[in-house]
Amino acid sequence: MGEFGLINLIRSSSTRYEDSGHTPWQEVLVGIGDDAAAWQSGNRIQLATTDTLVQDVHFDLRIINWDELGWKALAVNLSDIAAMGGIPKYALLSLALPGELEVEDISKLINSMMHMAREFRVAIVGGNVATAPNIVITVIIIGCSKGKTMLKRSTASSGDQIAVTGYLGSSAAGLEMLKGKAISDTEISNLLRRAHFKPIPRVEEGQILIEQGVKTAIDISDGLIADLDHICESSKVNAKINIEQVPVHPAVIANFPNHQELALCGGEDYELLFTADKATVARVEQALNCPVTVIGNITRERLPTRVTVVDNKGNIIPYKKGGWEHFKSNLKNPLTFQEPLQI
Amino acid sequence: MGEFGLINLIRSSSTRYEDSGHTPWQEVLVGIGDDAAAWQSGNRIQLATTDTLVQDVHFDLRIINWDELGWKALAVNLSDIAAMGGIPKYALLSLALPGELEVEDISKLINSMMHMAREFRVAIVGGNVATAPNIVITVIIIGCSKGKTMLKRSTASSGDQIAVTGYLGSSAAGLEMLKGKAISDTEISNLLRRAHFKPIPRVEEGQILIEQGVKTAIDISDGLIADLDHICESSKVNAKINIEQVPVHPAVIANFPNHQELALCGGEDYELLFTADKATVARVEQALNCPVTVIGNITRERLPTRVTVVDNKGNIIPYKKGGWEHFKSNLKNPLTFQEPLQI
Repeated sequence: MGEFGLINLIRSSSTRYEDSGHTPWQEVLVGIGDDAAAWQSGNRIQLATTDTLVQDVHFDLRIINWDELGWKALAVNLSDIAAMGGIPKYALLSLALPGELEVEDISKLINSMMHMAREFRVAIVGGNVATAPNIVITVIIIGCSKGKTMLKRSTASSGDQIAVTGYLGSSAAGLEMLKGKAISDTEISNLLRRAHFKPIPRVEEGQILIEQGVKTAIDISDGLIADLDHICESSKVNAKINIEQVPVHPAVIANFPNHQELALCGGEDYELLFTADKATVARVEQALNCPVTVIGNITRERLPTRVTVVDNKGNIIPYKKGGWEHFKSNLKNPLTFQEPLQI
Repeated sequence: MGEFGLINLIRSSSTRYEDSGHTPWQEVLVGIGDDAAAWQSGNRIQLATTDTLVQDVHFDLRIINWDELGWKALAVNLSDIAAMGGIPKYALLSLALPGELEVEDISKLINSMMHMAREFRVAIVGGNVATAPNIVITVIIIGCSKGKTMLKRSTASSGDQIAVTGYLGSSAAGLEMLKGKAISDTEISNLLRRAHFKPIPRVEEGQILIEQGVKTAIDISDGLIADLDHICESSKVNAKINIEQVPVHPAVIANFPNHQELALCGGEDYELLFTADKATVARVEQALNCPVTVIGNITRERLPTRVTVVDNKGNIIPYKKGGWEHFKSNLKNPLTFQEPLQI
């Protein structure tokens, strides 16, 4: 059935109950199918999201350290709140751990999570622990909207510019390095390792997008093409992006001949992809302290695929569908990890 | 380190950050160490809880069916909200599943969860799916308080009566049956199986406890003695219960010579244990539609253990500490499952 099949199964089962007229459903603003769920609670919008990291599926203890693992488990969840433009507030942890782990290692994991939570002003208020044959870390973050709105996947409209924060492909480049690609420069090597294991969720940036009038965003976890495709699917629009405008860090360009593939399909950069009219994007460029790059447009024109990639001359660049799936198929290696997938 | 050691580690790490004066911490009413976390959100109290079921640790697919698994995964979480006297409203699901599962089986699991969610008026609004070597099901429930208060573990006071809803030991008796103990009567066999796999969380009853003025409660998941001990620890009091007053279903008494042990230490009954003054308990008895049984008293008298068990003559009945741990140690068998433990 596959993971997307399972998500569709859950979504369709859930939809059958949505019209049942019960109070919680009446208050739901965003259900299954966005970065986080959202519902009205008094005069506030509440947000909630969860992501799970499974040992040997999403991470490998031979290459990630405990500090990085704690960071990443929180970061991927904070990024989902960022993608809604929300304020993360409370976290629950669900830790399934083998009995034979070292106390010192678990302490590092916990302390790293606590540290990151403090940095993002999140209170860890509960959770649960269980024994399990391999490590499964589930983080839940509950937050609220900054104002009366939130960023959604379903609001992109024809004519919008498509823009991204930061650089893309650095996390996937970091993974290639961790799998064995030699990078001699220590500074670059540290940069790439951090990009892969300690991504910085764009929480403040998401809130600024809202303030500047942006309505549509997603975090880039599955990969640029895959995540843009999620927006197009939700918004019932098409998108055209110029591969030569996709921002890639100079160190990645210099060291990775396949940097365009990494940027388009690599995933796990946890940058924000957003769409808005030209004037709004210009305001965002002024308001944000990070790079903001326009990479294309939302369009209703008939295109061969929902997301079309072109070069500077307008030639269509073919790609295989589905972000990391594509990436994985090209780079068969047990260390190419999967992304946790949002329901 | 053990699971309780891990919980203490998380609790102590967390406590170091609680005084940091950040907004979310200022709004926290109940953090780590109760059935659910609680915080003030405008004029409402929000509640959140999570529990995880791990294959071959908490359940065995050779004896539980998919429908029962979905039910139980939601029930254990709803029970935590019930123990706070809260109203469950939203759920997130995090499913880590092996790739080779049958679509039909997963559909049964999902449909069972959706069905139970509808029955308890909970909207399943999101979550995530991942591949994993064995099944790990995490459910998160977010709710709110019925009024301006909630049930806590920390408010028991000397002189309170100790009371429980329903019967205790039926779930553990069900487990003994599932492990091989013959029960010839089909009706009793179904009753015991349901008690173990399809416990009914006391959600409405928890809300009625609040309405009647009860302040202190916990759900019986670890076992009567263990959960009463949690209350005593949080409230800094001692408890004395009369083993002959502990309510056990007639079918369990008739078929299980060890029924007292099952009732004291078995766990997973998901009944509510609460304490209140005599008049309040009397009102609760009138208000609830299920059996309510007074089994002892909260006391400050010096006793050999925090929870002391006596018989009708006042003789102290010795027991090993720690609910299911005790139970497990007596009945070594891989089918004796652990309880997910609240942080």
